[in-house]
Amino acid sequence: MSKELTSRAEDYSQWYNELVVKAALADHSAVRGCMVIKPYGYALWENMRDQLDKMFKETGHVNAYFPLFVPKSLFEAEEKNAEGFAKECAVVTHYRLIADPENKGKLIVDPAAKLEEELIIRPTSEAIIWNTYKGWIQSYRDLPLLINQWANVVRWEMRTRLFLRTAEFLWQEGHTAHATKEEAVEETVKMLNVYASFVEEYMAVPVIKGVKTASERFAGAEDTYCIEALMQDGKALQAGTSHFLGQNFAKAFDVKFSDKNNKLEYVWATSWGVSTRLIGALIMAHSDDQGLVMPPKIAPLQVVIVPIYKGEEGKAIVDAKAKIIIEELKALGIRVKYDDNDNARPGWKFAEYELKGVPVRIALGQRDIDNNVVELARRDTKEKKSVSIDGLAVYVKALLEEIQQYIFNKALDFRTENTRKADTWDDFVKLLDEKAGFISAHWDGTPETEEKIKEQTKATIRCIPLDNEMEDGVCILSGKPSKQRVLFARAY
Amino acid sequence: MSKELTSRAEDYSQWYNELVVKAALADHSAVRGCMVIKPYGYALWENMRDQLDKMFKETGHVNAYFPLFVPKSLFEAEEKNAEGFAKECAVVTHYRLIADPENKGKLIVDPAAKLEEELIIRPTSEAIIWNTYKGWIQSYRDLPLLINQWANVVRWEMRTRLFLRTAEFLWQEGHTAHATKEEAVEETVKMLNVYASFVEEYMAVPVIKGVKTASERFAGAEDTYCIEALMQDGKALQAGTSHFLGQNFAKAFDVKFSDKNNKLEYVWATSWGVSTRLIGALIMAHSDDQGLVMPPKIAPLQVVIVPIYKGEEGKAIVDAKAKIIIEELKALGIRVKYDDNDNARPGWKFAEYELKGVPVRIALGQRDIDNNVVELARRDTKEKKSVSIDGLAVYVKALLEEIQQYIFNKALDFRTENTRKADTWDDFVKLLDEKAGFISAHWDGTPETEEKIKEQTKATIRCIPLDNEMEDGVCILSGKPSKQRVLFARAY
Repeated sequence: MSKELTSRAEDYSQWYNELVVKAALADHSAVRGCMVIKPYGYALWENMRDQLDKMFKETGHVNAYFPLFVPKSLFEAEEKNAEGFAKECAVVTHYRLIADPENKGKLIVDPAAKLEEELIIRPTSEAIIWNTYKGWIQSYRDLPLLINQWANVVRWEMRTRLFLRTAEFLWQEGHTAHATKEEAVEETVKMLNVYASFVEEYMAVPVIKGVKTASERFAGAEDTYCIEALMQDGKALQAGTSHFLGQNFAKAFDVKFSDKNNKLEYVWATSWGVSTRLIGALIMAHSDDQGLVMPPKIAPLQVVIVPIYKGEEGKAIVDAKAKIIIEELKALGIRVKYDDNDNARPGWKFAEYELKGVPVRIALGQRDIDNNVVELARRDTKEKKSVSIDGLAVYVKALLEEIQQYIFNKALDFRTENTRKADTWDDFVKLLDEKAGFISAHWDGTPETEEKIKEQTKATIRCIPLDNEMEDGVCILSGKPSKQRVLFARAY
Repeated sequence: MSKELTSRAEDYSQWYNELVVKAALADHSAVRGCMVIKPYGYALWENMRDQLDKMFKETGHVNAYFPLFVPKSLFEAEEKNAEGFAKECAVVTHYRLIADPENKGKLIVDPAAKLEEELIIRPTSEAIIWNTYKGWIQSYRDLPLLINQWANVVRWEMRTRLFLRTAEFLWQEGHTAHATKEEAVEETVKMLNVYASFVEEYMAVPVIKGVKTASERFAGAEDTYCIEALMQDGKALQAGTSHFLGQNFAKAFDVKFSDKNNKLEYVWATSWGVSTRLIGALIMAHSDDQGLVMPPKIAPLQVVIVPIYKGEEGKAIVDAKAKIIIEELKALGIRVKYDDNDNARPGWKFAEYELKGVPVRIALGQRDIDNNVVELARRDTKEKKSVSIDGLAVYVKALLEEIQQYIFNKALDFRTENTRKADTWDDFVKLLDEKAGFISAHWDGTPETEEKIKEQTKATIRCIPLDNEMEDGVCILSGKPSKQRVLFARAY
């Protein structure tokens, strides 16, 4: 397969699709809309998951596991939630296959094995979890419940794209239960902050923290908080959401607790999730026409060493030196691979690891060893230089931190350059078409205007930023008064 | 809820069911046959998973993720495999719900959203994975493929029990592809050994490694290797299996590779898996009438410290000393909890942690502190003694190792005592009914005899042990000649 990618300028969407497959992150599968996450993509997901999991545990959460299936009667209990997800539900109706009497060796669904009640494959787990919490919560002493689940979910999407929108995806979903509204809101914001820290510090993707408008809320939530990132094509991507669910699920599933005064109250809820979609954000925020650019902190491989030699004897010399370097790198906790596969030439390997976004490439040749140096190449800036073998591991460790920061700053600069104010409708439309990016503009606060803007421009309100300044203005479409700007963009 | 358990002698099965729920490992759910794995149970599973994952990676494997769904046409491609799982398949037939026109607020399956081809929820992933491997394997250079997946699977079981047999369960499934039969067989045995090491060294459960008879093989395998453990009621439990799949799946999915001589050959396969069922084995192998007994290496909590004090001032003294002890324990990598919850009395806590099987309990009182000691209780032997606070952490670390070994030895002794030879049919039946356990006996090697023995006694051939001695004898049922004994038991 050719390593050559369509350039971003030529066709950004095509570039993305090719990159995911050629860099061996994921593959299409035989199942409509479902992806195969390949080992390199899964190793990235493991690093992301492990870091997030650590952050969840540090904030007092524990993991548990709830059923994949939601009986229809439970699914429909919280009406708004059910309505929101109904049109994308995969439904199990039977539990057995039998031999096809008309086709030897083939199977058919056994009509006699029809379920009395259909089972929905979880598109999200509020229903099954709150039905379970009912049995776990009696008193204020049982609260808060701070539980997270790592799981697969299914949403039957019609137009799918690897990582960004797939019928099945992997995610985590936190589901917490609290005695007071204040505590639940605090939890919602706390987890939004955990997401923001993770995405900025580990994925090197700057995000805007904000609140969704009513029409963009999670189905069944009182408030949806989100982090929004900007991709290189100027489109926004929602990278994570944290929902304050009020008492909606507690009421739907009759989950009450007796407070300190022995009074029965409904429990307050939050839920929050991020998914393999984050990998799409990572790719689109940093990568270039040569391939992926992985942030060192979560890169499956941080350093690759490519030996350059002639003959067996030459290889033995390079191998011996590489062994020492690798030990030193590993001692500093650096993830390193030595690629001495003799089926491929160094040039091919260089292109391969560039495509895969390995942050640092070290070429180690016989002449280099004579001079006690290596040739070191940064994936992010493509800078190459000769570096002394003495102290190389310490140098590389510092360089990985520098790269992490560089990638973040670059993405931040891009976002800063591509966040603009629009004060008139004409400016708004012109900016959207000519520059894309985030547009900060006044809106009259009504869902009607929001809908009209969406219909006319495909731009949506990404969020009302949490750190928004109050400012008098007039709505770009309706001309009605407004107290603050909101953030618009076309989005994934 | 009462902490009191039914005793093992009274009703072993009831004891198990109560223990799983009361120790908060798992709970029944609203979905038939599906369990909720509660935080304590999930923490145990995480420890098991992380250790296994490490062992898989150390033996050269990488993780990936394949779709939950298997289109029916792929599912039926390997006929024996399909036939073996057909009767327990959950089937997705529709992808949308709509409002029920006759019941406001309720939903029905949208008859217009029927899938053209039904999707099977994976009961195991050979079909979807080998269909994918077809696109990944062209040449001998692409081999071996050493991939593992951590996932949920669904097998529609009619009689379910928490952990032991549930409709949905969590597991890992390794799926490897090789250029030669020898290499595939070697991989099959290697992973069996990994499982045996894990179960013995971490779960402290001794296992017999063996090969299944033809009728007990995995559907679609040429050979199934297994590890078999003995539970305290004398029944066997299959704790893990590793399958040599020959070229069956390569042929079903047309997966060929060109070898070094450019000759096209079918690829050789293995698959191997262990599941949350292992938790059932862990419980039944070690626990007693007071509750769980957790092997320290994978115990979610290794040490619990219960403070005993009077008044605020007393608490401050105990807290301060506990803080120092906890830091010392943590510095040695010991998982410790300080339970200073003032809603429960020490005695209640003692019973609670006994029920949960925490290996070491430390009671820390004001008088103890005056004497520079703690009261330390082992969960396994229930021994209590006074131990000096000086050097406590080092003492506890060694003790945890001792407990791990003690639990294993106890289970091994139990198995040794409960593995017996039977040379006649009468002896065999008598041993089964009076003593249970493993019975080593001659069998004529035919599936017919195996089936008759099963029908008459409910005992099955658990395996032909790998380290079996050859020995002439006659089949306990048919009287026909036999070259070796096989291992019988009634099993879970």
